[in-house]
Amino acid sequence: MFQEVLKDVVDRTEGGIAGLVMGFDGITVDSYVSPEAAGVLEVETVGMEYSVILKEIRKAAEMLDAGAAREVAIQAERLTTVIRLINDEYFVALAMKPEGNYGKARFLLRTSASKLAADLTV
Amino acid sequence: MFQEVLKDVVDRTEGGIAGLVMGFDGITVDSYVSPEAAGVLEVETVGMEYSVILKEIRKAAEMLDAGAAREVAIQAERLTTVIRLINDEYFVALAMKPEGNYGKARFLLRTSASKLAADLTV
Repeated sequence: MFQEVLKDVVDRTEGGIAGLVMGFDGITVDSYVSPEAAGVLEVETVGMEYSVILKEIRKAAEMLDAGAAREVAIQAERLTTVIRLINDEYFVALAMKPEGNYGKARFLLRTSASKLAADLTV
Repeated sequence: MFQEVLKDVVDRTEGGIAGLVMGFDGITVDSYVSPEAAGVLEVETVGMEYSVILKEIRKAAEMLDAGAAREVAIQAERLTTVIRLINDEYFVALAMKPEGNYGKARFLLRTSASKLAADLTV
Protein backbone atom coordinates (compact mmCIF):
# COMPACT_ATOMS: atom_id res chain seq x y z
CA MET A 1 0.00 0.00 0.00
CA PHE A 2 2.77 2.41 1.01
CA GLN A 3 5.02 0.84 -1.64
CA GLU A 4 2.46 1.57 -4.30
CA VAL A 5 2.17 5.23 -3.35
CA LEU A 6 5.97 5.59 -3.18
CA LYS A 7 6.53 3.85 -6.52
CA ASP A 8 3.92 6.10 -8.08
CA VAL A 9 5.63 9.27 -6.80
CA VAL A 10 9.11 8.07 -7.87
CA ASP A 11 7.97 6.92 -11.32
CA ARG A 12 5.93 10.02 -12.07
CA THR A 13 8.68 12.44 -11.02
CA GLU A 14 11.20 12.95 -13.80
CA GLY A 15 14.56 12.20 -12.17
CA GLY A 16 12.95 10.42 -9.20
CA ILE A 17 15.26 7.85 -7.62
CA ALA A 18 13.75 6.62 -4.38
CA GLY A 19 11.01 7.26 -1.86
CA LEU A 20 10.39 6.32 1.72
CA VAL A 21 7.95 6.66 4.58
CA MET A 22 9.74 6.93 7.88
CA GLY A 23 9.02 7.70 11.51
CA PHE A 24 10.79 10.57 13.23
CA ASP A 25 12.50 7.88 15.26
CA GLY A 26 14.40 6.89 12.10
CA ILE A 27 12.55 3.63 11.57
CA THR A 28 11.39 2.96 8.02
CA VAL A 29 7.75 2.12 7.40
CA ASP A 30 8.31 1.37 3.74
CA SER A 31 10.61 2.37 0.90
CA TYR A 32 10.94 2.07 -2.85
CA VAL A 33 14.08 2.43 -4.96
CA SER A 34 13.91 2.72 -8.75
CA PRO A 35 15.52 -0.22 -10.59
CA GLU A 36 18.37 1.95 -11.92
CA ALA A 37 19.31 3.16 -8.42
CA ALA A 38 18.97 -0.20 -6.67
CA GLY A 39 22.23 -1.02 -4.93
CA VAL A 40 23.53 2.51 -5.43
CA LEU A 41 21.40 4.63 -3.13
CA GLU A 42 20.65 3.53 0.40
CA VAL A 43 17.49 5.48 0.89
CA GLU A 44 17.11 4.35 4.50
CA THR A 45 20.47 5.86 5.39
CA VAL A 46 19.42 9.11 3.75
CA GLY A 47 16.18 9.02 5.71
CA MET A 48 17.89 8.33 9.01
CA GLU A 49 20.39 11.15 8.56
CA TYR A 50 17.71 13.61 7.59
CA SER A 51 15.22 12.46 10.27
CA VAL A 52 17.54 13.86 12.94
CA ILE A 53 17.69 17.18 11.09
CA LEU A 54 13.93 17.22 10.59
CA LYS A 55 13.42 17.01 14.32
CA GLU A 56 15.68 20.03 14.79
CA ILE A 57 13.78 21.91 12.08
CA ARG A 58 10.45 21.17 13.75
CA LYS A 59 11.76 22.50 17.03
CA ALA A 60 13.27 25.59 15.38
CA ALA A 61 10.11 26.44 13.43
CA GLU A 62 8.01 26.21 16.56
CA MET A 63 10.48 28.23 18.57
CA LEU A 64 10.49 30.90 15.86
CA ASP A 65 6.68 31.01 15.98
CA ALA A 66 6.62 30.03 12.31
CA GLY A 67 4.13 27.26 13.07
CA ALA A 68 4.40 23.60 12.22
CA ALA A 69 7.02 22.61 9.64
CA ARG A 70 5.41 21.15 6.53
CA GLU A 71 8.07 20.62 3.91
CA VAL A 72 11.84 20.63 3.71
CA ALA A 73 13.88 20.45 0.53
CA ILE A 74 17.62 19.89 0.50
CA GLN A 75 19.57 20.30 -2.68
CA ALA A 76 23.07 18.94 -2.74
CA GLU A 77 25.43 18.63 -5.70
CA ARG A 78 24.39 15.10 -6.60
CA LEU A 79 21.07 14.60 -4.83
CA THR A 80 17.91 16.56 -4.17
CA THR A 81 15.73 15.38 -1.30
CA VAL A 82 12.20 16.65 -0.78
CA ILE A 83 10.57 15.80 2.52
CA ARG A 84 6.91 16.24 3.39
CA LEU A 85 5.79 15.88 6.98
CA ILE A 86 2.76 13.60 7.19
CA ASN A 87 1.89 14.07 10.85
CA ASP A 88 3.65 14.32 14.21
CA GLU A 89 5.15 10.88 13.81
CA TYR A 90 5.89 10.25 10.13
CA PHE A 91 7.31 11.87 7.04
CA VAL A 92 7.55 10.93 3.37
CA ALA A 93 10.69 11.70 1.38
CA LEU A 94 11.68 11.60 -2.25
CA ALA A 95 15.27 11.45 -3.44
CA MET A 96 15.83 12.68 -6.97
CA LYS A 97 18.49 13.77 -9.41
CA PRO A 98 19.39 17.46 -9.12
CA GLU A 99 18.11 18.06 -12.66
CA GLY A 100 14.81 16.27 -11.95
CA ASN A 101 11.39 17.87 -11.86
CA TYR A 102 11.35 19.52 -8.46
CA GLY A 103 7.91 21.12 -8.86
CA LYS A 104 6.36 17.78 -9.74
CA ALA A 105 8.08 16.13 -6.79
CA ARG A 106 6.63 18.68 -4.37
CA PHE A 107 3.17 18.38 -5.86
CA LEU A 108 3.12 14.58 -5.80
CA LEU A 109 4.48 14.46 -2.26
CA ARG A 110 1.85 16.88 -1.06
CA THR A 111 -1.00 14.88 -2.54
CA SER A 112 0.44 11.53 -1.46
CA ALA A 113 1.02 12.78 2.09
CA SER A 114 -2.70 13.06 2.69
CA LYS A 115 -3.26 9.54 1.33
CA LEU A 116 -0.49 8.24 3.54
CA ALA A 117 -1.81 10.12 6.56
CA ALA A 118 -5.10 8.30 6.24
CA ASP A 119 -3.34 4.93 5.95
CA LEU A 120 -1.04 5.64 8.89
CA THR A 121 -3.80 6.48 11.34
CA VAL A 122 -5.84 3.32 11.53
CA MET B 1 26.34 46.72 -0.77
CA PHE B 2 24.94 43.56 0.84
CA GLN B 3 21.89 45.55 1.97
CA GLU B 4 21.21 46.54 -1.60
CA VAL B 5 21.34 42.96 -2.87
CA LEU B 6 19.13 41.78 0.00
CA LYS B 7 16.60 44.56 -0.46
CA ASP B 8 16.44 43.77 -4.16
CA VAL B 9 15.74 40.08 -3.51
CA VAL B 10 13.10 40.83 -0.86
CA ASP B 11 11.35 43.52 -2.91
CA ARG B 12 11.32 41.52 -6.14
CA THR B 13 9.98 38.35 -4.52
CA GLU B 14 6.21 38.50 -4.11
CA GLY B 15 5.63 37.78 -0.43
CA GLY B 16 9.26 38.49 0.50
CA ILE B 17 9.65 39.60 4.12
CA ALA B 18 13.32 39.70 5.00
CA GLY B 19 16.77 38.67 3.84
CA LEU B 20 20.11 38.17 5.48
CA VAL B 21 23.69 37.21 4.83
CA MET B 22 25.13 35.24 7.73
CA GLY B 23 28.20 33.23 8.59
CA PHE B 24 27.86 29.59 9.62
CA ASP B 25 28.99 30.78 13.02
CA GLY B 26 25.62 32.56 13.38
CA ILE B 27 27.02 36.05 13.01
CA THR B 28 25.09 38.35 10.67
CA VAL B 29 26.97 40.12 7.90
CA ASP B 30 23.96 42.16 6.88
CA SER B 31 20.19 41.95 6.87
CA TYR B 32 17.16 43.69 5.44
CA VAL B 33 13.58 43.57 6.70
CA SER B 34 10.68 44.90 4.61
CA PRO B 35 8.92 47.91 6.18
CA GLU B 36 5.74 45.95 6.83
CA ALA B 37 7.61 43.24 8.76
CA ALA B 38 9.89 45.58 10.72
CA GLY B 39 9.50 44.89 14.41
CA VAL B 40 7.54 41.69 13.75
CA LEU B 41 10.15 39.31 12.33
CA GLU B 42 13.56 39.00 13.93
CA VAL B 43 15.40 37.74 10.91
CA GLU B 44 18.66 37.33 12.82
CA THR B 45 17.02 34.92 15.24
CA VAL B 46 15.68 32.93 12.29
CA GLY B 47 19.16 32.89 10.77
CA MET B 48 20.84 31.79 13.97
CA GLU B 49 18.39 28.95 14.54
CA TYR B 50 18.72 27.72 10.98
CA SER B 51 22.51 28.16 10.83
CA VAL B 52 22.89 25.33 13.34
CA ILE B 53 20.65 23.12 11.21
CA LEU B 54 22.50 24.09 8.03
CA LYS B 55 25.74 22.86 9.53
CA GLU B 56 24.10 19.52 10.27
CA ILE B 57 22.76 19.36 6.72
CA ARG B 58 26.18 20.04 5.25
CA LYS B 59 27.65 17.23 7.30
CA ALA B 60 24.82 14.85 6.40
CA ALA B 61 25.03 15.58 2.66
CA GLU B 62 28.75 14.93 2.65
CA MET B 63 28.39 11.79 4.71
CA LEU B 64 25.73 10.54 2.30
CA ASP B 65 28.05 11.21 -0.62
CA ALA B 66 25.47 13.62 -2.05
CA GLY B 67 28.14 16.28 -2.47
CA ALA B 68 28.10 19.82 -1.16
CA ALA B 69 24.76 21.20 0.02
CA ARG B 70 23.61 24.09 -2.12
CA GLU B 71 20.12 25.08 -1.13
CA VAL B 72 17.71 24.35 1.69
CA ALA B 73 14.06 25.37 1.80
CA ILE B 74 11.93 25.09 4.90
CA GLN B 75 8.22 25.63 4.70
CA ALA B 76 6.37 26.10 7.93
CA GLU B 77 2.74 27.08 8.45
CA ARG B 78 3.42 30.81 8.68
CA LEU B 79 6.87 31.23 7.17
CA THR B 80 8.86 29.91 4.25
CA THR B 81 12.64 30.23 4.42
CA VAL B 82 14.87 29.65 1.43
CA ILE B 83 18.58 29.39 2.12
CA ARG B 84 21.34 29.43 -0.47
CA LEU B 85 24.87 28.51 0.54
CA ILE B 86 27.33 31.09 -0.76
CA ASN B 87 30.57 29.35 0.15
CA ASP B 88 32.07 27.37 3.03
CA GLU B 89 31.60 30.27 5.40
CA TYR B 90 28.46 32.18 4.46
CA PHE B 91 24.86 31.71 3.40
CA VAL B 92 22.08 34.00 2.21
CA ALA B 93 18.51 33.47 3.35
CA LEU B 94 15.13 34.84 2.39
CA ALA B 95 12.10 34.69 4.65
CA MET B 96 8.78 34.94 2.88
CA LYS B 97 5.06 34.42 3.32
CA PRO B 98 3.96 30.83 2.62
CA GLU B 99 1.86 32.03 -0.32
CA GLY B 100 4.77 34.02 -1.79
CA ASN B 101 6.55 33.30 -5.07
CA TYR B 102 8.84 30.44 -4.13
CA GLY B 103 10.25 29.92 -7.62
CA LYS B 104 11.22 33.58 -7.89
CA ALA B 105 12.82 33.46 -4.44
CA ARG B 106 15.00 30.51 -5.45
CA PHE B 107 15.99 32.14 -8.72
CA LEU B 108 16.88 35.49 -7.16
CA LEU B 109 18.82 33.84 -4.34
CA ARG B 110 20.82 31.77 -6.80
CA THR B 111 21.79 34.76 -8.88
CA SER B 112 22.49 36.98 -5.87
CA ALA B 113 24.61 34.28 -4.23
CA SER B 114 27.26 34.61 -6.94
CA LYS B 115 27.27 38.39 -6.58
CA LEU B 116 27.60 38.04 -2.81
CA ALA B 117 30.32 35.41 -3.15
CA ALA B 118 32.43 37.87 -5.11
CA ASP B 119 31.88 40.58 -2.49
CA LEU B 120 32.64 38.25 0.41
CA THR B 121 35.98 37.10 -0.89
CA VAL B 122 38.02 40.24 -1.02
